[in-house]
Amino acid sequence: MAKDKKEKLNFQLKVPKGTKDWEGKDMVIRDKIFSTITQVFKRHGAVTIDTPVFELKEILAGKYGEDSKLIYDLKDQGGEICSLRYDLTVPFARWLAMNSSVQNIKRYHIAKVYRRDQPAMSKGRMREFYQCDFDIAGTYDPMLPDAEILRITTEIFEALGWKGRYTIKVNHRKILDGIFEVCGVPKDKLRTISSAVDKLDKSPWEEVRREMTEEKGLDEVVADKIGEYVNHKGSRDLLTELSNNETLVANESAKAGLADMALLFDYLEVFGVLDRISLDMSLARGLDYYTGVIYEVVTEGSAPAVSKSSESQRIQRDAKKEAKKTGEDDDRSDDPTVGVGSVAAGGRYDELVGMFSGKNQIPCVGISFGVDRIFSIIKARMEKENAAAVRSTEVDVFVMAFGGKGFTGLLRERMEIAKRLWDAGIKAEFSWKVKPKLQQQFKAAEQGGVPLAIILGEDELAAGKAKLKQMGLEEGHPEKDGVMIDMADLVSEVKKTLARIDQTTTNGFNGMTEAVEKLEV
Amino acid sequence: MAKDKKEKLNFQLKVPKGTKDWEGKDMVIRDKIFSTITQVFKRHGAVTIDTPVFELKEILAGKYGEDSKLIYDLKDQGGEICSLRYDLTVPFARWLAMNSSVQNIKRYHIAKVYRRDQPAMSKGRMREFYQCDFDIAGTYDPMLPDAEILRITTEIFEALGWKGRYTIKVNHRKILDGIFEVCGVPKDKLRTISSAVDKLDKSPWEEVRREMTEEKGLDEVVADKIGEYVNHKGSRDLLTELSNNETLVANESAKAGLADMALLFDYLEVFGVLDRISLDMSLARGLDYYTGVIYEVVTEGSAPAVSKSSESQRIQRDAKKEAKKTGEDDDRSDDPTVGVGSVAAGGRYDELVGMFSGKNQIPCVGISFGVDRIFSIIKARMEKENAAAVRSTEVDVFVMAFGGKGFTGLLRERMEIAKRLWDAGIKAEFSWKVKPKLQQQFKAAEQGGVPLAIILGEDELAAGKAKLKQMGLEEGHPEKDGVMIDMADLVSEVKKTLARIDQTTTNGFNGMTEAVEKLEV
Repeated sequence: MAKDKKEKLNFQLKVPKGTKDWEGKDMVIRDKIFSTITQVFKRHGAVTIDTPVFELKEILAGKYGEDSKLIYDLKDQGGEICSLRYDLTVPFARWLAMNSSVQNIKRYHIAKVYRRDQPAMSKGRMREFYQCDFDIAGTYDPMLPDAEILRITTEIFEALGWKGRYTIKVNHRKILDGIFEVCGVPKDKLRTISSAVDKLDKSPWEEVRREMTEEKGLDEVVADKIGEYVNHKGSRDLLTELSNNETLVANESAKAGLADMALLFDYLEVFGVLDRISLDMSLARGLDYYTGVIYEVVTEGSAPAVSKSSESQRIQRDAKKEAKKTGEDDDRSDDPTVGVGSVAAGGRYDELVGMFSGKNQIPCVGISFGVDRIFSIIKARMEKENAAAVRSTEVDVFVMAFGGKGFTGLLRERMEIAKRLWDAGIKAEFSWKVKPKLQQQFKAAEQGGVPLAIILGEDELAAGKAKLKQMGLEEGHPEKDGVMIDMADLVSEVKKTLARIDQTTTNGFNGMTEAVEKLEV
Repeated sequence: MAKDKKEKLNFQLKVPKGTKDWEGKDMVIRDKIFSTITQVFKRHGAVTIDTPVFELKEILAGKYGEDSKLIYDLKDQGGEICSLRYDLTVPFARWLAMNSSVQNIKRYHIAKVYRRDQPAMSKGRMREFYQCDFDIAGTYDPMLPDAEILRITTEIFEALGWKGRYTIKVNHRKILDGIFEVCGVPKDKLRTISSAVDKLDKSPWEEVRREMTEEKGLDEVVADKIGEYVNHKGSRDLLTELSNNETLVANESAKAGLADMALLFDYLEVFGVLDRISLDMSLARGLDYYTGVIYEVVTEGSAPAVSKSSESQRIQRDAKKEAKKTGEDDDRSDDPTVGVGSVAAGGRYDELVGMFSGKNQIPCVGISFGVDRIFSIIKARMEKENAAAVRSTEVDVFVMAFGGKGFTGLLRERMEIAKRLWDAGIKAEFSWKVKPKLQQQFKAAEQGGVPLAIILGEDELAAGKAKLKQMGLEEGHPEKDGVMIDMADLVSEVKKTLARIDQTTTNGFNGMTEAVEKLEV
């Protein structure tokens, strides 16, 4: 780095548009979400890969259709022309093509992606944001990976503390295609009608019907027939009803899709997750690369029933505004941050990851978690309940000293205690002042939410003792003033006490779970 | 994503120059290094921040001198001009300036940075690589944060399994400046002579002396006087010797530096880490923004004693080639991946992070860990000892089934067992085949390094039992064929057995530590 003179700042100190810094409690919550999700992935034997933040432009080009104009390019500085990755699916497909000996893999990838959204459309939309993808690539017996992905999804939301307060909407591309064919949708309108139907989670049937007939030129009779199918949701009852519909099962596509769904339901029942599933005929997920089961996770009863936080409401309003403005197929509707109330989405897409492999298609089923949306919801819920439930650091013990006249600060003694604690793997800190005031040390411990203090005094130390004190106990609590311990037992006493302390003040999702469970959304 | 037709590939499928994918065991080792390091940071109360991968170009411009041409720019696509971050220090300085209420912070940041190294210089040099920075910003009593950073450093290398096999070289900018002044170095040559002295870890004194006198025009008498000082390393003995040198302590700068060093040594002794410290008068760390203590961590006895792996040797050869070619102050010498044999480096730099804060300087002391270098060394050591010590996944139990004629596959039973294990937080998988062959299931478990198998059989299940078997036991081991357990005790039996199993086959650094300790470097 060059010699740095103090330059006059003639520019604004800011992060680029659409990006942000992460720090403090937000960082702690976000990392906790990532580690919780990762733990579930690992429980199911998944591996992770890490790819470069930029790819050769030619690898990204042509993969995103209209969205290509939203790709960040690197400047041509001589050499290869590169662009920032737009998602994690194309890097995955490239990696598979380059590692063609890999015929099956359960891979997760949590990383930032870059989309240069145009300002007019992007209120609340970030240009740099995390995606969290989990994909199972490979050939297996039918519906088993598909079922395990949904089991993994429930484990994740349970672990995040949303116990039972989310719904996984499922449907199947082949059932939908069958329905559209049976109702008489012309082949060239299949995709655009599919994206209209997908809006049933945000708009009433009348509006969707109007879009199909007036804007997209669909015959009204056909539209009404569609309405008789897609306005239904349920579970095995609906599945049975559809399977008994002779018109529908005469259609090969619908028949195959219904068979898949029956098998899926059987597997989901064994996995104990069927009660979180809603077979929802209006779920279409506008994109046409899905070839089998499709799913979307929403919070609470019906979308868009997300938390009432002003941030969530703003996100909802902007998403509605945008949907109205374009009235078009939203190419980003696979991005869960777009779907109103949706926190994860995915499906089976057997013809996509082979995009670079020539003839060699690898069947794939996956899900993408909208971690920004999930973060916003968890944060809003926690703020409503108990902002103090999240600590910025994980320190367990603050080593302090006090004394009257002639107090030397007991710095070396504090350092020795801290060293003993660190040697035992205990998280500890002490004031970096030779002679700190007791008040200042207590304040530092309180602000840090540190649960325990070791308080040294010259007389006590001479007798081989020190005080061990739980912070934050109420007046009248028998241990409010702490207990004397033998310095020889320092580590064991600290460990015993930490094990005993109520864990709701730590950064475990236990604390968050309790906070969340007390809330109504 | 647009409809995807199978395009003819008329380009090569590759990652951009200077980047790489991470996968498999490399990914596991790398993540283990990060989590080990992070755990130590958290033990000392540090917090982390996350900044965008690109900054406004004007924020980066002017900060890197000659290295500015190595910055990756984003293309001008209308709007703000941005560049990829080159290090983590400038983003930290910008963050501090934007969050000016923060007057002190212990912050770590592990993230990728981008340097568009020119191909001729960059054999083995990546363009996208991780940096791992830890900085303590704020005003405290002298040398306390400086000492704790070195304590943290030893905890990290101990946790990585390098017990005692690394050395922390320390020196002090003020002592060096004092030495140069006392020896008679002209003020305008201070920096260039400092960078020459810094090469004493790679080159013999004769060559450094020649560079100082012939290339940099230093008086030979002055050079010889410098030689009397800088060719010494030791501990308190050397410190005492220097402190008794009347000529040296008559110099204000040297006197202040020696006082700092004496205090630091006292603190390091209390922290129990003095035996890893080498006071090394030849350590200069060419950059001139260091204002106090400076340090560099090397592996084993003397630099460049790194592992003999061909990758490390290639890195060494290229670093030497480059140093010879430029013969200049290497602006990247603060990057530990450059210093031969160096795996971490840093120091106190009180006038840097205020670069955006106008008058408001915040004193700062920090260290940067060369995680790519550390990864290479650990990986080379492990390959030498035991490639099998690292597993790709963490699955603990493989649920299998077998049967003779009429075997149905017991799929639902396998799924139910897996569900019970997942509900108990146990990592498990089963074959996604309705009727898998036993051989195929065993092979999958072996390849995955899964330590335990639950083997179901129709008769056993009817009796409420199944076999629990440790994988990989030698012939003759009493439990080689497994033990029958009651299905009612499934979870407790599995947990008991996992606790008992030798942990050297897991991904803990215990396994890596043992492997490492058996090696000679």
